[in-house]
Amino acid sequence: MPKLLRLNMSTLEAKFEDVPEKYLPLGGRALTSQLLLDEVPPQCHALREFNKLVIAPGLLTGTNAPSSGRLSFGGKSPLTGGIKEANAGGICSQKIASLGIKAIVVEGMPDDKKTYIARVSQSGAEVLAADELAGKGTYEVTALMRERFGSKVGVICNGPAGEMMLAGAGVATNDGDGNSSRYAGRGGLGAVLGSKRLKAIVIDSPTTFGVPVKDKEKFSIAAKKFAKILLEHPVTGTGLPNFGTNVLMNVINEAGTLPVRNFSNIGRYEHANEVGGEALAAAAKARGGQVAHACHPGCVIRCSNAYPMPDGKVCSPVEYETAWAFGPNLDIKDLDTIAKLNYICNDTGLDTIEAGVALGVLMESGTIAFGDGEAAISALSEVAMGTPAGRILGNGAAFTGKAYGVTRVPTVKGQGLPAYDPRSCKGQGVTYATSPMGADHTAGYAVTANILKVGGFVDPTKAEGQVELSRNLQVATAAIDATGLCLFVAFPVLDNPEGLPTIVEMINAQYGIDLTVNDVVALGQSILKTELAFNTAAGFTKADDRLPEFFYTDKLAPHNTVFDISDADLDSVFEK
Amino acid sequence: MPKLLRLNMSTLEAKFEDVPEKYLPLGGRALTSQLLLDEVPPQCHALREFNKLVIAPGLLTGTNAPSSGRLSFGGKSPLTGGIKEANAGGICSQKIASLGIKAIVVEGMPDDKKTYIARVSQSGAEVLAADELAGKGTYEVTALMRERFGSKVGVICNGPAGEMMLAGAGVATNDGDGNSSRYAGRGGLGAVLGSKRLKAIVIDSPTTFGVPVKDKEKFSIAAKKFAKILLEHPVTGTGLPNFGTNVLMNVINEAGTLPVRNFSNIGRYEHANEVGGEALAAAAKARGGQVAHACHPGCVIRCSNAYPMPDGKVCSPVEYETAWAFGPNLDIKDLDTIAKLNYICNDTGLDTIEAGVALGVLMESGTIAFGDGEAAISALSEVAMGTPAGRILGNGAAFTGKAYGVTRVPTVKGQGLPAYDPRSCKGQGVTYATSPMGADHTAGYAVTANILKVGGFVDPTKAEGQVELSRNLQVATAAIDATGLCLFVAFPVLDNPEGLPTIVEMINAQYGIDLTVNDVVALGQSILKTELAFNTAAGFTKADDRLPEFFYTDKLAPHNTVFDISDADLDSVFEK
Repeated sequence: MPKLLRLNMSTLEAKFEDVPEKYLPLGGRALTSQLLLDEVPPQCHALREFNKLVIAPGLLTGTNAPSSGRLSFGGKSPLTGGIKEANAGGICSQKIASLGIKAIVVEGMPDDKKTYIARVSQSGAEVLAADELAGKGTYEVTALMRERFGSKVGVICNGPAGEMMLAGAGVATNDGDGNSSRYAGRGGLGAVLGSKRLKAIVIDSPTTFGVPVKDKEKFSIAAKKFAKILLEHPVTGTGLPNFGTNVLMNVINEAGTLPVRNFSNIGRYEHANEVGGEALAAAAKARGGQVAHACHPGCVIRCSNAYPMPDGKVCSPVEYETAWAFGPNLDIKDLDTIAKLNYICNDTGLDTIEAGVALGVLMESGTIAFGDGEAAISALSEVAMGTPAGRILGNGAAFTGKAYGVTRVPTVKGQGLPAYDPRSCKGQGVTYATSPMGADHTAGYAVTANILKVGGFVDPTKAEGQVELSRNLQVATAAIDATGLCLFVAFPVLDNPEGLPTIVEMINAQYGIDLTVNDVVALGQSILKTELAFNTAAGFTKADDRLPEFFYTDKLAPHNTVFDISDADLDSVFEK
Repeated sequence: MPKLLRLNMSTLEAKFEDVPEKYLPLGGRALTSQLLLDEVPPQCHALREFNKLVIAPGLLTGTNAPSSGRLSFGGKSPLTGGIKEANAGGICSQKIASLGIKAIVVEGMPDDKKTYIARVSQSGAEVLAADELAGKGTYEVTALMRERFGSKVGVICNGPAGEMMLAGAGVATNDGDGNSSRYAGRGGLGAVLGSKRLKAIVIDSPTTFGVPVKDKEKFSIAAKKFAKILLEHPVTGTGLPNFGTNVLMNVINEAGTLPVRNFSNIGRYEHANEVGGEALAAAAKARGGQVAHACHPGCVIRCSNAYPMPDGKVCSPVEYETAWAFGPNLDIKDLDTIAKLNYICNDTGLDTIEAGVALGVLMESGTIAFGDGEAAISALSEVAMGTPAGRILGNGAAFTGKAYGVTRVPTVKGQGLPAYDPRSCKGQGVTYATSPMGADHTAGYAVTANILKVGGFVDPTKAEGQVELSRNLQVATAAIDATGLCLFVAFPVLDNPEGLPTIVEMINAQYGIDLTVNDVVALGQSILKTELAFNTAAGFTKADDRLPEFFYTDKLAPHNTVFDISDADLDSVFEK
């Protein structure tokens, strides 16, 4: 029977518990969100003793299901004030699942100012003093943990940003190369980890695919079929492995919905091609780097990459959202500068999207100039130093706006908008506005039908159809986030009628149960209901489900559209 | 007929309008709040074009009613996100009322980055370019305006903090000596003025008591009676004129509810006597300063003072809340340091309470030490310089806490708590939690019955009776804030059954109407209903009507009590 592991940071004890029956059918986001609603007072301070950080592998994680190694992190967000789930790749999730751990719950808070780590292995779990790690970057922490506990360990950790409890801090996990660059980035969960004074959780286990499967044969057939479905789709089989997620740069630019210079009123960037996936892949290869890199064992999509930087270090990966956040969003057209900013975020423990949007707001204030890469690097480097300017930036875009008197700030529920302008990708705008997570592209990726014509087509410049599109995607995403599958499986699943049934087959074979496709949809709806209940109790209302004012008033070229989904339509997203 | 004056900062036009009939019976806070609900979208960005700053004298202002010269400022607060009214003394209110202006509405927003002033006189109103004033402190701005337009003018202005749109910025007005030290401090309304790029409004009129009174004889009798009521009460007749509001320091200390070192767990300060009203009055007198100073003509309470500082400048006044915020709250026991910090706030355009609470939070972070007056002066001086550290502090206590990772932050709805610890002055805690204004001592001053035994006695350490006490005071306060009377009239009004009827007699005589005491109570209730409606539409819920977590968990000496008013009881405040 799988266990819950509680790391009580008030008593510094690690305890295994039986998993309550109600949690057995849940995994990933389904489990983190339910456990938070059950155990965390929604109105509590996100950075004090009553909040918890819940870490849960998905339902399929630790099996041979392709691309199923995501790890969900959940907590009350210090950035949004609401519930948060952010998931990441890397090697930890499969190891945790293989240890028979359904979830790790970090709770309580020490009353001293010391620094701790936790070690989890087959022989148990313990909390250890680790003051020597205080203030260190994630690369060094991960290297030290691999040195101490062996090169196969998984390391969940935060950087100085999380220790300083800055709301832009993410939680890092490592890939197979030992890079601490797989991020549960959004919503400031690194600050929650920091509030617990837990610098790292070392998953000291060599086992990746150790989760028991009830019907091995049935599972194997379904898993192979699913791998085929993934490999045959043009996005997951060709685009992503060849050019990584940054294959989107030229596509989104072409569509005229690329945010440029802090979501100014143009939707195209003349230098997009210079920072896009094709250019990135060519440069990475030319320097002996890597494309088609897998963030966790068993991923068949392999959208990650390894980009060698001029200083000899490697940034892995450079993703689309990051390339956009530090590229067009800042008017920076140089991949090396983008990779450097990315690397600083990884090491400091910062969400790249939030950091990029915050830098855009800082540039809007005139404090540093758009396009000035050196100034951006210098500003971002201050976060780890803990200077006042660094603390402002590290607290995210909304915070930076308030500090510097900028009112054109692209955030929802306090979280920075990702790389699609909602004025001409309106389905995405509905997701930004209404997701219980705050502005989040992954929560309901309407770019599919709006731009990529995956799963049909809904004109991105029109209001019609966007609410339904976003609603369906938010439900489907929540369900996928419970499985541990990478969200990118959604591309073939939306186009291929065999996709979802095959996922259900894998789950059924693993657990010896008999779910239907409808059950999985119901799971997605139930997750959202849980999250919305938390947020309502935390004090959220429909007033929080709105985009910033300027998206409604300022037209975006080239389509010359504003965001015009009515409040009533936004309010209807979760009324069905 | 009185007029509304609209200063449209988009078009740079000043226009007089007839007052709509529904606004005729309203003044002060009643008018600012109703006009905001009618004209400002509650979900708008507080620092963009759709917010408005409404400036309204009270119903009795500009007559001979004693102590009736308060001026209400209203807007959506950039600090709380809700509706805000903050009122101030000084000479402007009576001049505005005497010009026949019921309210000034500052609206719109220029699309350039220029600086403007407005001039209002008997011959009209105009918006003028004033780039030469950009960045200047309020003392210099006020001096320049008096130089340019004459020494009798009233000047409403903001300092650099408001121009930078920092959420701790207040709006300054001047007293008869020309000091820009009368503050509508709370809630960041200086930032709203800054967002409109209006540096100052010059009220260029010599007339103070020019408001027509229908029944002069009846009015004169009532006004004299009211003056007598004020002068015969020990608080308004003796305590306040002799020692100013800082007479409270030793009283609150004795009661064991004085917040010390950022609301730590002790309720008494061993050096309270050194920074209290008695010491302050003695020092002011010894240096040739002044006590029993009136902030506006016709005030019979005269609680203001003028405190000569060692550098030759005069800080006028040093109030209790300020002496506490920079004194016990920071463990600073030196009146000269307190006066210096006060003066810096006045000049920079900062609310002293918010600045003091923010400094307390900064000290809690260890960035500067408790008790280090020089460091506090240096930190506060950075606000006007616009350094990152200064911008953090200038944005208030909640912002400072987030920046420096401090989670023990005494704020409600984002606004810093004033000088009474809610754990042993629980009626005040109910007001902090539930007032639509955020934590505000003036919104329902339960210190009266809790500590001063004015208007009865309700044991401050017990939960019983606090909800009713706070509710009644909040209603009465809203009504008083509509009249233009200084809130301190509440002391005699609570003790003397003749008080409230006499106020009603003055209003009736002035307007030739026939209100009853019940009508005035109904007005107070109606104002609160208006404000709560705005806040609900802005997205506030009961979850916002709570004190910070630590007041519920950490006991305060010497009474060893926590704040234990239940959520249900807090929620019942406005259900009756």
